[in-house]
Amino acid sequence: MRDLDREETYLADRRGLALELRDLVGSGPVPKEAYPGPHAALGYGEGWLAARLSGLPDWTEEGTLFVLEGGYDLGEAAALALVAETERVRVVRVGFREGAAYLPPSPLAPYRYLRFLLLATGQEEALSEVDKALLEERKRLTPEVPLEANPAKFLAYTLLERLPLFYAPFFRPLEEAAQSLFARIGKSLSLTPPHSALEFFLTGLEARHEQGDPLAAVLLGEGEAVRLAKEILETRVDAVAEVPPPEGSRLAQAVALWYRLAWTAYYLALLYGVDPSDPEVLERLREAT
Amino acid sequence: MRDLDREETYLADRRGLALELRDLVGSGPVPKEAYPGPHAALGYGEGWLAARLSGLPDWTEEGTLFVLEGGYDLGEAAALALVAETERVRVVRVGFREGAAYLPPSPLAPYRYLRFLLLATGQEEALSEVDKALLEERKRLTPEVPLEANPAKFLAYTLLERLPLFYAPFFRPLEEAAQSLFARIGKSLSLTPPHSALEFFLTGLEARHEQGDPLAAVLLGEGEAVRLAKEILETRVDAVAEVPPPEGSRLAQAVALWYRLAWTAYYLALLYGVDPSDPEVLERLREAT
Repeated sequence: MRDLDREETYLADRRGLALELRDLVGSGPVPKEAYPGPHAALGYGEGWLAARLSGLPDWTEEGTLFVLEGGYDLGEAAALALVAETERVRVVRVGFREGAAYLPPSPLAPYRYLRFLLLATGQEEALSEVDKALLEERKRLTPEVPLEANPAKFLAYTLLERLPLFYAPFFRPLEEAAQSLFARIGKSLSLTPPHSALEFFLTGLEARHEQGDPLAAVLLGEGEAVRLAKEILETRVDAVAEVPPPEGSRLAQAVALWYRLAWTAYYLALLYGVDPSDPEVLERLREAT
Repeated sequence: MRDLDREETYLADRRGLALELRDLVGSGPVPKEAYPGPHAALGYGEGWLAARLSGLPDWTEEGTLFVLEGGYDLGEAAALALVAETERVRVVRVGFREGAAYLPPSPLAPYRYLRFLLLATGQEEALSEVDKALLEERKRLTPEVPLEANPAKFLAYTLLERLPLFYAPFFRPLEEAAQSLFARIGKSLSLTPPHSALEFFLTGLEARHEQGDPLAAVLLGEGEAVRLAKEILETRVDAVAEVPPPEGSRLAQAVALWYRLAWTAYYLALLYGVDPSDPEVLERLREAT
C-alpha cells in the first residue's frame, strides 16, 4: 500500500493540485462592483454548489441574477441569461464561457463561485467566516502533516478499496458535491442516498453483505438524523466514518467539510496512484457541449 | 436463475404487491373539496416525488399549503405545518401521521400523493392523462405478459447482479425516486449521479473495470443529454439500457416511467427470491422518528 507520509507518493500529482488546494482561500475572480438587490443565483456544474450554499432564490423579477456557468449545461444557462435580462433585471454571468467573468474550470471552482457571489452581494463578513474556517482546517490537512494528525489522510485510508456512501442531513447538497469531488479528483465512484435516506439505508443495504464492493458510510455533520443513520448503518456497511463539522456558521461548516473532502479525494487519488487533476478528459466534453 | 414466466417464482410475493401494483390507478384518498389557490406543496418521504412532479412552489403566503407527510422527517413536517397556518393560508396535511388525511405507507404511495394533489388543485385533466398512460403501460407489465413482450421483466434480467445507475436528464428527481423503488421493493442498491452528471460519468467511472460490481446504466427519457451519456457510458459500464418515455404530457411520461421502474423493481426482488414488500423493517423506523 502506498504511504501518504512519503514524498514519492506525491509524484502522481503531476500538475500540482496540492498547491491549488493549499492556496484556495482568497483565489478566484473578484466582482468589479456591488450589484443592486434583490439577488438571485442560478448555478450549473461547478457553480451549482455555490448557488445552493448562497440560499438565494433562482429567479428574480428585479435586481441582479447571477448565472454561474460552470458546467455542461447544453446551452441552458446562456438561454436563461438571455431571457432573464430585462430593464429591471441585470444578469451577471460568471464561468468559463465566452462573455462571462472568467472563472477557469477546476474541481475546486465551487469555492471561487461562492466567493464571487458573497462579494458581489455585500456579504464580506460571511466570506471571512468561511475563509477563517478553511484556513483553520488547512493546518491539519496538508501533505506535510503526518497521518496521525491529518484527518483527510486518515479518511482516505478508510475509504481505500471501498465504495463511499455520503450522508449530510444538515445540508443535503453536500452529498452530491462530495460525489463530484471523489469522481473528479479521486477518480472514484461513490454513492448518495435519495431524499428518504433512512428508509433507503434500511431497505437498500439489506442484502449487501454477500455481494460487491464493501461500503463505507461517511456521515457529515451531526444531530439526530446522523445518530439514527449511524445506528442503522453500523450493521449494514463495512465502515462508518463520522465527520463532525468545525465551529462556525452553517455556511462555514458546510464549506469546511467540502474542503476536507477535497483533500480526502486528493489523498485517495494518490493511494490509487492516479493523477488527481482532470483537465484532458473534460476538455473533450467541453467541446462537445 | 429464477424464471419470471413460471408461477412458483411469484411465491416470494407473500403479501401480494403485484395486486397493489396492478390496481394502483385510481387508488388512494380523495380530497373532500377544492382548495383555494394559490397552491403550494411540501413533500416528505413518500410525498416528496409528488411535490416535485406538481411543479408547485414549496411555500405560500396565501391560499393552500399541502404538507405531504409521507416520511421520517423527524418532526419537521408537523412543525412547518404549524408555522404555515395563518388566517390567509390553509394547511392541508396528507400522510400516515395523526390528524392528516390518511394515506397509508407504501412504496407505491407517491402516485397516491400526486393523485390527491392533482384533484385538490382542480387538475382532473392532468390526472386523467397520467392515469391513461399508466393503464397503457400496465398492458405490457403484469406477470401474465411473457418476457419477450414485457419490458419490465426484460429490464429486471438486465439489472440482475448488477449495480443500476439511473440517469433521467428530463426530470432529475426521477433518479432518486428510482433509487427508492429499487431499495424498498427490489431490496437492491443503486446509484444516482450528482448534478454534473456527464462530468461524473467521465471521471468517476474511469477505473471501474477493474473493481467491484458490474454497473448497468439505465437512461430514462430521451434527447441530447441522453445521447451524450450513452456515448460516454458505453465504454465504461457493463450494460446500457435505454428507456424512452411513452407518449403523453411531461407529467404523464415521468409517472409512467416511474411505474415501469416499480414493476422492474418488483421483478428484480423475485429474481433475488426476496419479498418485494417491506412493512416490518420500516415499522421500527416509524416508531423511532
